[in-house]
Amino acid sequence: MATQKEIGALKKLVRASNFLSVAQIYLKQNVLLQRDLAHEDIKPRLLGHWGTCPGIAFVYAHINRLICKHNRPFLYLVGPGHGFPAVQANLFIEGSLSHFYPDTIPYAEAGMKQICEKFSAAYGYPSHANPEAPGQILEGGELGYSLSVGYGAALDNPDLINVVLVGDGESETGPLAASWYANRLLDPKTSGAVLPILHINGYKISGPTRLGRMDDEEIRMEFTGLGYEVLFVDDEKEEDVYEQMATAMDRAYEIINDIQKRARSGEDVCKPKWPVIAMRTAKGWTGTKEADGKKLEGNCDSHQVIINNCAKDPEHLRLLNEWMASYGFDELYSIGEDGKLEFDKEIQSLIPREDLRIGRQILSYGGEVVRPLNKPNLDELSYGAETARGQRGVSMNKMGEWMRDAFRLNAEQKNLRIFSPDETYSNQLQAVFEETSRAWQWPIKEWDNDMSRDGRVMELLSENLLFGMLHGYTVTGRHGMFPTYEAFAQVVSSMCDQYCKYVYASQGVPFRKPVPSCNVVLSSLLERQDHNGYSHQNPSLLGAMLEKHPTIISAYLPADGNSTLCYTEKAFDDRDKLNVIVAGKKELPQWLTLEEARKQTAEGIMTWDFASDENPDVVLASCGDYVTQECMAALVIIRELLPKLKVRFVNISELTSDGVGSLKYGQNPTLLDEFFTEDKGVVINYHGYPNTIHKLLFNYPGIKRCRVKGYVEEGSTTTPFDMGVRNGTSRYHLVIDMAYKAFQQGVITDAQHVEITTDMLQKLVDHRNYIKEFGVDPKEITDWVWSR
Amino acid sequence: MATQKEIGALKKLVRASNFLSVAQIYLKQNVLLQRDLAHEDIKPRLLGHWGTCPGIAFVYAHINRLICKHNRPFLYLVGPGHGFPAVQANLFIEGSLSHFYPDTIPYAEAGMKQICEKFSAAYGYPSHANPEAPGQILEGGELGYSLSVGYGAALDNPDLINVVLVGDGESETGPLAASWYANRLLDPKTSGAVLPILHINGYKISGPTRLGRMDDEEIRMEFTGLGYEVLFVDDEKEEDVYEQMATAMDRAYEIINDIQKRARSGEDVCKPKWPVIAMRTAKGWTGTKEADGKKLEGNCDSHQVIINNCAKDPEHLRLLNEWMASYGFDELYSIGEDGKLEFDKEIQSLIPREDLRIGRQILSYGGEVVRPLNKPNLDELSYGAETARGQRGVSMNKMGEWMRDAFRLNAEQKNLRIFSPDETYSNQLQAVFEETSRAWQWPIKEWDNDMSRDGRVMELLSENLLFGMLHGYTVTGRHGMFPTYEAFAQVVSSMCDQYCKYVYASQGVPFRKPVPSCNVVLSSLLERQDHNGYSHQNPSLLGAMLEKHPTIISAYLPADGNSTLCYTEKAFDDRDKLNVIVAGKKELPQWLTLEEARKQTAEGIMTWDFASDENPDVVLASCGDYVTQECMAALVIIRELLPKLKVRFVNISELTSDGVGSLKYGQNPTLLDEFFTEDKGVVINYHGYPNTIHKLLFNYPGIKRCRVKGYVEEGSTTTPFDMGVRNGTSRYHLVIDMAYKAFQQGVITDAQHVEITTDMLQKLVDHRNYIKEFGVDPKEITDWVWSR
Repeated sequence: MATQKEIGALKKLVRASNFLSVAQIYLKQNVLLQRDLAHEDIKPRLLGHWGTCPGIAFVYAHINRLICKHNRPFLYLVGPGHGFPAVQANLFIEGSLSHFYPDTIPYAEAGMKQICEKFSAAYGYPSHANPEAPGQILEGGELGYSLSVGYGAALDNPDLINVVLVGDGESETGPLAASWYANRLLDPKTSGAVLPILHINGYKISGPTRLGRMDDEEIRMEFTGLGYEVLFVDDEKEEDVYEQMATAMDRAYEIINDIQKRARSGEDVCKPKWPVIAMRTAKGWTGTKEADGKKLEGNCDSHQVIINNCAKDPEHLRLLNEWMASYGFDELYSIGEDGKLEFDKEIQSLIPREDLRIGRQILSYGGEVVRPLNKPNLDELSYGAETARGQRGVSMNKMGEWMRDAFRLNAEQKNLRIFSPDETYSNQLQAVFEETSRAWQWPIKEWDNDMSRDGRVMELLSENLLFGMLHGYTVTGRHGMFPTYEAFAQVVSSMCDQYCKYVYASQGVPFRKPVPSCNVVLSSLLERQDHNGYSHQNPSLLGAMLEKHPTIISAYLPADGNSTLCYTEKAFDDRDKLNVIVAGKKELPQWLTLEEARKQTAEGIMTWDFASDENPDVVLASCGDYVTQECMAALVIIRELLPKLKVRFVNISELTSDGVGSLKYGQNPTLLDEFFTEDKGVVINYHGYPNTIHKLLFNYPGIKRCRVKGYVEEGSTTTPFDMGVRNGTSRYHLVIDMAYKAFQQGVITDAQHVEITTDMLQKLVDHRNYIKEFGVDPKEITDWVWSR
Repeated sequence: MATQKEIGALKKLVRASNFLSVAQIYLKQNVLLQRDLAHEDIKPRLLGHWGTCPGIAFVYAHINRLICKHNRPFLYLVGPGHGFPAVQANLFIEGSLSHFYPDTIPYAEAGMKQICEKFSAAYGYPSHANPEAPGQILEGGELGYSLSVGYGAALDNPDLINVVLVGDGESETGPLAASWYANRLLDPKTSGAVLPILHINGYKISGPTRLGRMDDEEIRMEFTGLGYEVLFVDDEKEEDVYEQMATAMDRAYEIINDIQKRARSGEDVCKPKWPVIAMRTAKGWTGTKEADGKKLEGNCDSHQVIINNCAKDPEHLRLLNEWMASYGFDELYSIGEDGKLEFDKEIQSLIPREDLRIGRQILSYGGEVVRPLNKPNLDELSYGAETARGQRGVSMNKMGEWMRDAFRLNAEQKNLRIFSPDETYSNQLQAVFEETSRAWQWPIKEWDNDMSRDGRVMELLSENLLFGMLHGYTVTGRHGMFPTYEAFAQVVSSMCDQYCKYVYASQGVPFRKPVPSCNVVLSSLLERQDHNGYSHQNPSLLGAMLEKHPTIISAYLPADGNSTLCYTEKAFDDRDKLNVIVAGKKELPQWLTLEEARKQTAEGIMTWDFASDENPDVVLASCGDYVTQECMAALVIIRELLPKLKVRFVNISELTSDGVGSLKYGQNPTLLDEFFTEDKGVVINYHGYPNTIHKLLFNYPGIKRCRVKGYVEEGSTTTPFDMGVRNGTSRYHLVIDMAYKAFQQGVITDAQHVEITTDMLQKLVDHRNYIKEFGVDPKEITDWVWSR
């Protein structure tokens, strides 16, 4: 039970922050309401989302109470991030804004004026939660990710409690709906806790919410079924809602503590029933109840700015004045001789000690909380020099071995995890199970493999949930990987976009320091869909990510196992980025020694001398692993048919939205001539859509000499080689393309050109006929050739 | 209660289809098992997903029983589409395959051999549900969409019952998790029903499922809370599982009928509690129980091919032989004198009359079930000739008026709906509420606006749910629109990809006829995020879709209201496509008369004569509405500064992955010279990422003359004009670019070039300084200029 003194303090703090929220939305001056409002105090354009602010402030205050009571670290993730004025108001009151922005936001009237003036203003503060706001680890714009990010941040932080406010609008999204399932993954022994609070104010922008129109019993059933213990708070019930909430928070804390104690004292806790608070408070609570004949409080009409003509309409101004005055803000502060604000003692009693304030929680800043990974030894893991070029190996197995060793080497610092939508084995990373297992808190059967309560591999068949957890894990300074089926990575395309926005915006914020990269690994590539088919053939994420900032996104396409090792290492060395690594999970020929692979990885583009002639007539380039195999086979064919033709082979292993190769080539594309020559024809065989390479070559002066081959949306259940035949990326097609370039250059005759083309086309027809009549040639997939 | 005869028939049908499923996975010959299996009967590569097949077949049989009993139309949506052999087996047994493929799949042993031989074979049948399979309206590859698609297909088909089998793996995805909420939207009076069946076989590819490790009480609570009535079927319970299932299906049918009867007899049914069946049957049910020391049945190890060395290992072969023989398939058929198969009479008793067979359900084929929309009169809706160029109007309002009239004109044929994630008003389509309202089956309060049980606008804050419903609605022949915030359209990027795959694959299938296009409308554009900010600035869906097949995807970017009207009409005329329409929701200048807009829409690119000079020195082009405004302002400035410079203005309003303008320009890009001249500099101002235009211009010979401006990921809460300043798409930037092109062409002097550039840069600096010091100039957003 909260004391009456505590309840009084909570009410004062919420009054103050509600006042400040309203001030941010409406006022450009007179922000302390030291006199009645005048039209000229009102901003010329009123922007902001009032409706959800009071609920956010209400929860903020109650978290502060728990922090003060227990001196324990909390993060507060605000799903309804559009209610940013409430977050900002509290960050101001607790002093975190003035700490990080002492010059622009002093702890004084001028600071308050600043946060009011600049709220939702161009070159001011954004209108929703964002990295410029201390303590936030989530953009508050796109809805649906708060709960999964909260779960991710809780991992491996056993003391931490993450309170996640889930908007009832947000809760309708698919990503949020599946986030509840994370209770299957979170180990109460080794990780912290998540306390979800459903912010049921009943309305979205223009209509009721699903939760808002459900009765308590429906909500109790649904969330109990999901595995939670539901605690209700309802401002329409008789008991004071502050008391209800304090009781619910205390009870939630107790339940969390109890579960953790049991788990940490050696009990095997199966199905931990974590608490969830279903909090019903009116939309626009404490705001004007009605205006212009419209119901405002408790209705969607209070979603954004209400009574929005205060700058001109005297009645609107009167209502705003009345509303703001109702908070009695003048009773809640004084101004010291030094001009500093001093809030009411009771409010001060709710401000936690500095390091535990929500805006000062060190986990949210990157930098010093980041411990670099102890890295596996590539010399041990790589294919040695004795492995002749063309020996077969599996890129994803190599990555799995790297991860296995990394789990071993970082077992103590506990800052590495895999987040995988059910595909750790399927994507051939199973070596990691020599060192760890999959986390699972519901019953484990005797025949289950590689499962335990505290496994470091998080598996559930939800891309959205797992990517959200990875987001939470990396922005709080840890290292993670999200291996997924290439075709289904698009499910989290929007989450990747928002992650990049968070990182890009963070970089402009002085107190935010670099965080480890978010590493998306695409496997089960489009070429290898023998089991599946057309629905599983989709390289879209690559193309989509390669429209973003070149400094934030890199795509890594290692051609073989040793390059995969090097890129895995590089990806974990990277900071403040999202990397997309594309690697096959089946046997493919190996090409590079470790030393060569290191050079390849450093530059992102390399001439493979062992496969190239001096002074080439034609350049053949590849980007991707299967397409590299076809290039090598094409080289053998063309050298047999045209022994005098000189061909250079170039492998591209890195792409940014600026261009091919590492950033330096993108920013100075003429450097590519070093690889592509100054005037010869270039044929590029690419793993994904040719359009993706087209856009990256735009600034390259030699663009017109380049012909790009790639996946052109022709697919089915078939073999890698046949995928090449269907999409024009096969060895035979490449020979035709090279011959055409050679013919254009005048290096071969018309007759030679016709003969080679006819020959290759016949081979393509033969292949189709053979496969149609006899099915797949079992030799086919191993049929590559290489000799030099 | 099912009769014992019915139960017997069900068991026989399932035995037959299980046998045929196994045959498809393993056998290339001896497919009737007329002798013991030999190694050479086995396919060289074993592919397929056995584990889920028996459950799919079990449900198929039980649906057949209901169809036969009630003669009512059913669709069967198979979420675990990877269990395709079970679907294919039943399509064969019921005769639908032989109906549609009489030559290749006769109703005879040869037909069975064909489906076995070609299953999962290159140029054969894909390995998961797909459009080549009759009756299917969903690709069975990417998981998560079965339930929402089922709900969409049920709309406006009051007799139809859609049985949706939801895999317990699939049920972990975000999109599926939110699909349960569709019970808020489906009106039992005017629409059909959805019967979800949870296929709880307990395992995914390598581990247990969430549902599989829950007890019945947890499941009952969760789904009761979600608003459903849960019926349990469990093969570990004592009662025969066939009897349990028949009882559950009968009960479900009864509940559905009861709800519909009540609603259709005038009762206002609030919170209809539709049935859901939680069906527990073992993974790999009826398969080999154990091999090589591994538990197979009832474990994840039966997910794909089990005992997979039958071609060589005698023990594996023996197990397979024993397993297949266990179905006693030889007792279930005979072969007539004509060589035709005849199945056991009891099996035949479960095959519905032709038009009601699952594989023959006409709703799944497009073509004749498609009724074209009665179209609104553009002459009435458009801005008339009297509207001077430059008058202001709102594109989305025009679209709303078009939709309003379309709702009126198609009120009787009931084949038009809007699917909107909470944004019908926000995206300025509110005119539609003059004719219809939003659907809502939970309580409606007196102060709610535009809500009713049977509204034609489907709103819930889940992009995934609503896009899935649109998918189901259009592929069953109706017309729909998905208006959404541009920035969050990426949430359904993967669903768009899969929709396109479905349509593209359908086009190769003779019995499938065209269906109306899926129309994605992007509004709340990146330029207008005064309320929101950086998280809401993301044109990625445009770029992502423009990598796909040019015949399947068009992007329409009308520059004003009249073009928006024309493109809305065109979008609904289109067939077998996904259109992305980009249109602003705030006031912008109008440019084109209706006649001009029609010409613009026909070609997708047009020179605006009224804004162009003859024999231009420089070409300025726009693609998008805000960027067009900036171009027009830039023209005024440059004409003032350089009155002798001749500029042509071109508007691009259509993009495909082949290029700019309609498909014809993409396929023959030299035609663009008509607009871009043969040798002059071209400056293109684009709404989205410049990279998107870069890739589309790759095949255009004049590519090097083009400079593309667009969104380069710089954003925040700010004004449209300031977005232009940040991203280099403002009028001042355009003047600089045009001057540079003119200087390059030698049309202006070095001194002029320097002067103009300096002048414009100063204006940009002034703007920034002004906005930083004084905030937004309230005049700014109306500050455009146009005169001629």
